[in-house]
Amino acid sequence: MSYTAPLKDMLFDIAHLARIDQIAQLPGFEEAGLDTAQAVLEECARFNQDVVAPLNQEGDRNPSFFHDGAVTTTPGFKEAYRQYAEGGWQGLQHPVDFGGQGLPKTIGSACSEMLNSANMSFALCPLLTDGAIEALLTAGSDALKATYLEKLVSGQWTGTMNLTEPQAGSDLALVRTRAEPQPDGTYKIFGTKIFITYGEHDMAENIVHLVLARVQGAPEGVKGISLFVVPKFLVNADGSLGARNDVHCVSIEHKMGIKASPTAVLQYGDHGGAIGYLVGEENRGLEYMFIMMNAARYAVGVQGIAISERAYQKAARYAHERIQSRPVDGSIPASAPIVHHPDVRRMLMTMRAVTEGCRAMATVAAAAYDAAHHHPDADARRQNQAFYEFMVPLVKGYSTEMSLEVTSLGVQVHGGMGFIEETGAAQYYRDAKILTIYEGTTAIQANDLVGRKTVRDGGQTARAIAAQIEATEAQLVHNGSADAVAVARRLKDAREAFLEVVDFMVAQAKGNPNAAYAGSVPYLMLAGNLMAGWQLARSLLVAQQEAAAGHDAAFMAAKIVTARFYADHILTRTLAQRVAILEGAANVTALPVDAF
Amino acid sequence: MSYTAPLKDMLFDIAHLARIDQIAQLPGFEEAGLDTAQAVLEECARFNQDVVAPLNQEGDRNPSFFHDGAVTTTPGFKEAYRQYAEGGWQGLQHPVDFGGQGLPKTIGSACSEMLNSANMSFALCPLLTDGAIEALLTAGSDALKATYLEKLVSGQWTGTMNLTEPQAGSDLALVRTRAEPQPDGTYKIFGTKIFITYGEHDMAENIVHLVLARVQGAPEGVKGISLFVVPKFLVNADGSLGARNDVHCVSIEHKMGIKASPTAVLQYGDHGGAIGYLVGEENRGLEYMFIMMNAARYAVGVQGIAISERAYQKAARYAHERIQSRPVDGSIPASAPIVHHPDVRRMLMTMRAVTEGCRAMATVAAAAYDAAHHHPDADARRQNQAFYEFMVPLVKGYSTEMSLEVTSLGVQVHGGMGFIEETGAAQYYRDAKILTIYEGTTAIQANDLVGRKTVRDGGQTARAIAAQIEATEAQLVHNGSADAVAVARRLKDAREAFLEVVDFMVAQAKGNPNAAYAGSVPYLMLAGNLMAGWQLARSLLVAQQEAAAGHDAAFMAAKIVTARFYADHILTRTLAQRVAILEGAANVTALPVDAF
Repeated sequence: MSYTAPLKDMLFDIAHLARIDQIAQLPGFEEAGLDTAQAVLEECARFNQDVVAPLNQEGDRNPSFFHDGAVTTTPGFKEAYRQYAEGGWQGLQHPVDFGGQGLPKTIGSACSEMLNSANMSFALCPLLTDGAIEALLTAGSDALKATYLEKLVSGQWTGTMNLTEPQAGSDLALVRTRAEPQPDGTYKIFGTKIFITYGEHDMAENIVHLVLARVQGAPEGVKGISLFVVPKFLVNADGSLGARNDVHCVSIEHKMGIKASPTAVLQYGDHGGAIGYLVGEENRGLEYMFIMMNAARYAVGVQGIAISERAYQKAARYAHERIQSRPVDGSIPASAPIVHHPDVRRMLMTMRAVTEGCRAMATVAAAAYDAAHHHPDADARRQNQAFYEFMVPLVKGYSTEMSLEVTSLGVQVHGGMGFIEETGAAQYYRDAKILTIYEGTTAIQANDLVGRKTVRDGGQTARAIAAQIEATEAQLVHNGSADAVAVARRLKDAREAFLEVVDFMVAQAKGNPNAAYAGSVPYLMLAGNLMAGWQLARSLLVAQQEAAAGHDAAFMAAKIVTARFYADHILTRTLAQRVAILEGAANVTALPVDAF
Repeated sequence: MSYTAPLKDMLFDIAHLARIDQIAQLPGFEEAGLDTAQAVLEECARFNQDVVAPLNQEGDRNPSFFHDGAVTTTPGFKEAYRQYAEGGWQGLQHPVDFGGQGLPKTIGSACSEMLNSANMSFALCPLLTDGAIEALLTAGSDALKATYLEKLVSGQWTGTMNLTEPQAGSDLALVRTRAEPQPDGTYKIFGTKIFITYGEHDMAENIVHLVLARVQGAPEGVKGISLFVVPKFLVNADGSLGARNDVHCVSIEHKMGIKASPTAVLQYGDHGGAIGYLVGEENRGLEYMFIMMNAARYAVGVQGIAISERAYQKAARYAHERIQSRPVDGSIPASAPIVHHPDVRRMLMTMRAVTEGCRAMATVAAAAYDAAHHHPDADARRQNQAFYEFMVPLVKGYSTEMSLEVTSLGVQVHGGMGFIEETGAAQYYRDAKILTIYEGTTAIQANDLVGRKTVRDGGQTARAIAAQIEATEAQLVHNGSADAVAVARRLKDAREAFLEVVDFMVAQAKGNPNAAYAGSVPYLMLAGNLMAGWQLARSLLVAQQEAAAGHDAAFMAAKIVTARFYADHILTRTLAQRVAILEGAANVTALPVDAF
């Protein structure tokens, strides 16, 4: 089996860190207890292991193919997608009203990780559909919801996000695609969109494009952007498909990774104008798009965890198979499987600790999302929303940046074989690199963390989280085991560094923005590192209790070692980041631009 | 121009850090002063910029191609190689006696960097030829030297290193290729070698394979390995080419990067036995191979610097061209080139500081090599040799590991365009990954650093280098400028961490080898970081003097900022590595192997 879902670790996080028992107390989630989570995850694991994972390397070898306006996906993708839709997986987290299963994000996130571990290129299609559903749920009219949501939730149709244009990447103020109002209330859309994931493909009968464009006469900049639904095929009143709309794929990109996922250039309106339907109100497109993007950003963070898990599994398997050199400790008097060599262990432990830490962080963030949307108490909703929003750039930025390190180590464990494409480890390395770029580069996440998530409330949310971490430290000290005490010390150092940096950001962002933003990515990495380390510290406490209660001793012992490893080897990096941010800001921008 | 050789920075290092004026005092290097260095580097730059660099992307698109035993290289490679040989570039560092130019490694290293920046896949062919020349010079009989050296030094023939077999990668004890002695003093060679760079190609008329094999009846393990010359075409007494030898390429690998460089599987002896000639004595092959490997390891370190430089140049150029978003400091009231954004500057500064730091380290190591081979005083030779040997795993390990970070940042600066193959940034990311693997993985370098370079002499060489660093700190403090004092503080912290780790390695390596080797790669990274940071600290002192003397103010100012940036942002990472090594060793190997 090329991929085995880490069900034990996922369920540990869901049960003990995200506290699914508490989520099941929330209105609407009454059925969503641990038993449901386990049943859904097991079924999801089977599907992804058996159907989706075997297509991953095939997708790299036989990427999506463009010819004459049409995209043919990798052999097997269409059938796998049919099974995905039929299994109801697209609707997992979406409202029952539109045919979904209405499960918490806490469960959905684990399922999303599995799909992405199995096949990141394949998983991108459902990921984008989720975003389209989210946007329509938030801002779509009843008519739009009635026409599109059920088909998207069932997976019969798929969705896309159309933001980027050749001159407008991170800077949406530069969007030029234009929308001309028509007498019947529709709009005609004209323009070129690039980097449109699954913008054209053959896996579903219709594609629902969510498109940013400017209505004629709209204000300049981001305040003049509106959001439109532009279906590939127009939809008749009875829900059947009508005429082909004037949106056409003119090419797809030749990429370093995720090759099976078609990245389309879409041309709108070359034959009279593509018919579009306004979502919500004019000029509020960016606001709606941010809703989609926040969902998508969290999901991309999960992709980072997913590809790290897959790379780890492959490397661990190879380390058991490959025989080279005697262990330095003399424990085996002959050439031995390389898993016996300390540096291979260091690499595997790094991969494992980072993956488990990021998974724990993402799972806890998902639980906050669930509470933010379902808790009966407004204060609890507000606090959970603030926590979730703080975590989104960390889940996205930290998990994906770390996936570059993890997939690189994955190649490294394989030695020379890692560089040979047939081995498969190189694909993860190539695939992962998109994760720090799309749905907002790490720098964009870091801007969000500094500006919207830290400075805007004067550091209040950040300090509230730090206070929770301090409480965990106290529990660790109270626990008193050597591991707990050691982890408490590292956590304290990292938390104090975090608080210093938060104060620095709050103090500098207005008056000396260059100093703040010079440290924005290091701050994101420090904060993400701390949050993941915190959750592993919590895991250590749980694991000691569970082990004492006689539950799964080997798993709990591994959890404790992993948490300790993370604290000593990963969390300690915050020491360096702290200095770079607080004392190294000036020299980031000291050189004149023409020196580069 | 896709690549511009960083002549100013190279000459700064050669003049002020490597002290070419002192090298020119050594017997045999009388002509090798700064003027010679400058003339050679300028000519080398022209050749690589104009002829070799334009073929780099072409090599990625049209890799070497295998058909029916023959390898056809990328269009243009053969002609470029002809010019390379005609220009005398292969012989730059090799003895005048065999047609070389006998220049110091200090100059040769800069030329090697340029060739690798221009086209790493192309440069691998000369790199391997250098290794073959080195082995023959060290251990070849007069007859072998007479037959092969002149043709290799002129570039008329090329060389290869044949170590790896399917079951024997890092672990040469497992080599199975066998050599049967013949009555005429030759040997017949039988076996399969894999991962043979330029093991077959069409750029030169003959290929001289240096092959590790076991003579029948030789002891088990590495003490029974001998080294042989096995030419593709046998050589007649008059030096003309004779019969085709029984060594055949049966396939080449499909790799993630360096695609233009053919990586051959070579089959020896399928048709009666390949004729081989013993190099030196039987069973001493590994010893000779280490001479080749040490040269090759240094050269691979330079490849790391070279690809970092190329990635930096590309990213810097894009950062000037790409227009997105307003600068946060309000300095430009409209969307601006991204070089104005602090995080883009942080990425470019990181790329630049790491590249310059590693270049400075490698240049100083080359100077030590030159003194070790040419100094009239035996003590000076010994000290320089010890210094050089300590630096080799750092130049190789640190420069290449950092090249992964630099090339990843290079993609990141390009945003979505970086992931599109046509842009070219992705190629550097893919190409670089081989550098931490071949000629000994980073873990193998780290074993060498711990075992042979640190523990064997009880840490003496390491402490002697630390004493030199301490002297630089004193100079910085004496200098008294804010930059110098700040850098001195970082250097002191890093040096003290280094000394603690050296003591730890010396204390643990025998009794608790798992603890030592769990930290071997972090130790390598800490030591490499310190050495590069030290050389940039020396650069800062020189740059202040030069600036005061009115020399090239802009360059010197940039050098000072770069050194300061390195100290604050890169050197500080040693704080984290120190803790991981000294306090985190036990948990690296705490999990049982079946937990992975």
